[in-house]
Amino acid sequence: MGDINNNSAFDYENLFHNNILPHGKIGITEDFLHRFTDLIFKHLVKANDRKEKVIDFTHPHKLEADFNENFQIEKDPLSLEKLMVDCQRVMDLSVKTAHPRMFNQLFSGCDLVSMVAAWVTAGCNSSMYTHEMAPAFNLIENLTLQKMGKMCGWDEECDGLFNPGGSISNLYAVQTALHYHFPQTKDNGLFGMPRLVMFISAHSHYSMSRAAAILGMGTESLKKVPVDSQGKFIPEKLEEMVLEAKQKGEVPFFVCCTAGTTVLGAYDPIEPTLEICKKYNMWCHIDAAWGGACLLSEKHKGLMKGVERADSVTWNPHKLMGALIQCSAFLVKRKGILASCNKMNASYLFQKDKMYDIKYDTGDKTIQCGRNIDAFKCWLMWRAKGDSGIEAQIDQLWHCAALLYSECKRRDAFEMVMENPECTNVCFWYVPPSLQHLDRKSPEFMEKINAVAPKIKERMMLKGSMMIGYQPLDDKPNFFRMVFANQATKDEDVYFLCDEIERLGQDL
Amino acid sequence: MGDINNNSAFDYENLFHNNILPHGKIGITEDFLHRFTDLIFKHLVKANDRKEKVIDFTHPHKLEADFNENFQIEKDPLSLEKLMVDCQRVMDLSVKTAHPRMFNQLFSGCDLVSMVAAWVTAGCNSSMYTHEMAPAFNLIENLTLQKMGKMCGWDEECDGLFNPGGSISNLYAVQTALHYHFPQTKDNGLFGMPRLVMFISAHSHYSMSRAAAILGMGTESLKKVPVDSQGKFIPEKLEEMVLEAKQKGEVPFFVCCTAGTTVLGAYDPIEPTLEICKKYNMWCHIDAAWGGACLLSEKHKGLMKGVERADSVTWNPHKLMGALIQCSAFLVKRKGILASCNKMNASYLFQKDKMYDIKYDTGDKTIQCGRNIDAFKCWLMWRAKGDSGIEAQIDQLWHCAALLYSECKRRDAFEMVMENPECTNVCFWYVPPSLQHLDRKSPEFMEKINAVAPKIKERMMLKGSMMIGYQPLDDKPNFFRMVFANQATKDEDVYFLCDEIERLGQDL
Repeated sequence: MGDINNNSAFDYENLFHNNILPHGKIGITEDFLHRFTDLIFKHLVKANDRKEKVIDFTHPHKLEADFNENFQIEKDPLSLEKLMVDCQRVMDLSVKTAHPRMFNQLFSGCDLVSMVAAWVTAGCNSSMYTHEMAPAFNLIENLTLQKMGKMCGWDEECDGLFNPGGSISNLYAVQTALHYHFPQTKDNGLFGMPRLVMFISAHSHYSMSRAAAILGMGTESLKKVPVDSQGKFIPEKLEEMVLEAKQKGEVPFFVCCTAGTTVLGAYDPIEPTLEICKKYNMWCHIDAAWGGACLLSEKHKGLMKGVERADSVTWNPHKLMGALIQCSAFLVKRKGILASCNKMNASYLFQKDKMYDIKYDTGDKTIQCGRNIDAFKCWLMWRAKGDSGIEAQIDQLWHCAALLYSECKRRDAFEMVMENPECTNVCFWYVPPSLQHLDRKSPEFMEKINAVAPKIKERMMLKGSMMIGYQPLDDKPNFFRMVFANQATKDEDVYFLCDEIERLGQDL
Repeated sequence: MGDINNNSAFDYENLFHNNILPHGKIGITEDFLHRFTDLIFKHLVKANDRKEKVIDFTHPHKLEADFNENFQIEKDPLSLEKLMVDCQRVMDLSVKTAHPRMFNQLFSGCDLVSMVAAWVTAGCNSSMYTHEMAPAFNLIENLTLQKMGKMCGWDEECDGLFNPGGSISNLYAVQTALHYHFPQTKDNGLFGMPRLVMFISAHSHYSMSRAAAILGMGTESLKKVPVDSQGKFIPEKLEEMVLEAKQKGEVPFFVCCTAGTTVLGAYDPIEPTLEICKKYNMWCHIDAAWGGACLLSEKHKGLMKGVERADSVTWNPHKLMGALIQCSAFLVKRKGILASCNKMNASYLFQKDKMYDIKYDTGDKTIQCGRNIDAFKCWLMWRAKGDSGIEAQIDQLWHCAALLYSECKRRDAFEMVMENPECTNVCFWYVPPSLQHLDRKSPEFMEKINAVAPKIKERMMLKGSMMIGYQPLDDKPNFFRMVFANQATKDEDVYFLCDEIERLGQDL
């Protein structure tokens, strides 16, 4: 293990936690922190190297047996050297999310400015609830939220929070709408209420179902509006379904337009939806967790036309904008509604006789108590790049998607699941030579093509050359969902991806 | 600003985000990371220095005006130098939570092993949902949860999750109990159900009220059991209230014992509560977010006798154990119940035809989708110290509390709110000389003593010498709540705290 510490004057095999601050020496502490920085730096250099594997895959049961033997928490302390070895091992086993060919999720890359922001917040080890405990971070959160509100075209100051993920932001959306329409439910609950119903795209994120279940309405309160061939929900169907629900005595109160669906990247039509919401007195939420960053691009912001009149928006800077996970904003137009919805008057935390203006305390607005400092990761990165830098990055991601789309059209073995995608999602089947002759609608083809993506995925995982997601959708068998979210990805990676799929799948 | 970069060969004033990875040079990246490490290291050295201020307080409206002018996100990129200056400023403004005299919250200190673990997870920039994306971290989470389950005396493998804070863990507790007793509500909701009710201590954390509101039951579903002079709820009262509810046609299903209440640090009686829960078929949850770490101490684990028979436990390693914020575990005995409760079958994320055993994917168990890697901060720290190191740390915190208690008893100007505290909370009034002659029960005394703690708090904030919380409770006027959670705190800090309160308050 000399390799890990070849720069160090200290014998970490014989140093322990009490040799660093708060009990140990400053000099050792300084060196210890820099040794960890080296470990992480080397991991990042590897991750940015196209010759390196994206993942070094081990089957979980094998890894579990190994961890059970070697990674248990023990009775006695371990040396600082051992901690470094552990962390090196953990990093080696982890997916290199910064790798330009990591396409598996709706996030990718490791923005280093955002990363050092996360290091700073770790070093400050604080929580967002009060100005007293996080003066700078609370103000920075508000600056960032207001900036995002402005990008939505909202004129007035908005309300909002950074939350642990888009699912929680969507939960806030439904909860806030419920509170706006039925404030008495905060105290009385839903017992004795008529069935409340909400409307979402059939392709919306599953967090909306979870929100319905968590909030006590149940998944049956969720009505899924059918989508057209471009994956967008059909406003006329929405209105029909609202009327149908009303006839049954149900009470519609909430509609969610997805701005960038998870699989196809579709943007639901916001403007006609707003009209329907106005007509039937329903809350209009935009789930732009994935696609919201188009608002930063002059070229692409038209995709969300109408957002300026929506009631609330979910938008995750950790997705297309590239901030470190987790970084999800919930924005809501009505100032004060979050506190009204969540305030519980905890006198030990939010004293009314504080020495400062307590409107700056944010804890009463949340469903949490302590809250991670997530806004800072977005703010520092955005400051580093400026609007112009983020715009260039967003346009580059859309460019990669357009390039992949034309490349898929050019190659015989690739078939599109959907023509002319709007976001950076490009969905396609790879049809191996052995299946080319089959009728595309035949049961034999459907069955065989369904097995192709999982097999190619397995091969790419074992080889480590790249990572792409696949899934079925509606009546469509398994297909690849390519998404571009990594600022390190270049044209050469798009060509590589097509070539690599052909290499991995041609014998299937 | 030469000061920030006096070790560097690079001219950061003329370097920007695209000069570091993924677009820039490796050498600059390496140096950039080490410069940030230096900034954070220096912040930590300051924070560990008793001569430094705990906080450099600025009123929020002043800071807001300053930030509005200087901290806006701009159109153009900022230099890497400017980012360092920004971060330096933010750290200077932040509470030094690592300071041995930061007593304001139920967390304190900055464990450096836990901190580098957070740096590593930032460098890996991943999310917990699948084995595919976080192989090592998912297994490590499970190892840590099982270790905590064992400390609870649970023989079998348990289920559980690390969550963004104790409030969310408590939300899981109520949600899981609800699902266990009324699984149909996941789909049907609470419409048409009789009123479900839950029982908690009158001194329980406000997250239980929030949970009732969020889950659609409303705060009226929450029945607060009165406490005795030691702040523990009274089991006989609990049983009376259960019977009363049943007579009204309400349906009791959940009881929460708090193990370490927020203000007084009381441990509710678990064993008699278990009997009542068994008798009336109610779920027994232990909210040990604050006090759970007593389980690691041979001396103090008796405080939670009976936990081995509870249904679920909330336990935050970021509190008494000292892991970095946020680090909160929800443990539940019934294996599989979390997935049953939260599964939504998202085919794009949790494919059934994956190449590996999908029981290792954790995403279907949560109310989130992406989830921060919190367990690692606990695991690495615990490995570093071993059970024995954590035990010594816990015993030291209890020792400080005992010392403060005896010091308060010894000094004339200090009056206890509660005798013989069980946890590390020590609650007291400081009675300035001018109020010593007043009758303790007189309205004049009550009014005047109520103003003392806020005034002393203001003075200590402006001086920056320490931070302690205060609050009223029931009919008791504002008092100080001292809590020990910081491994850096020593006997000398206990004496300092008493002396400092006397210095700050003697003229009031």
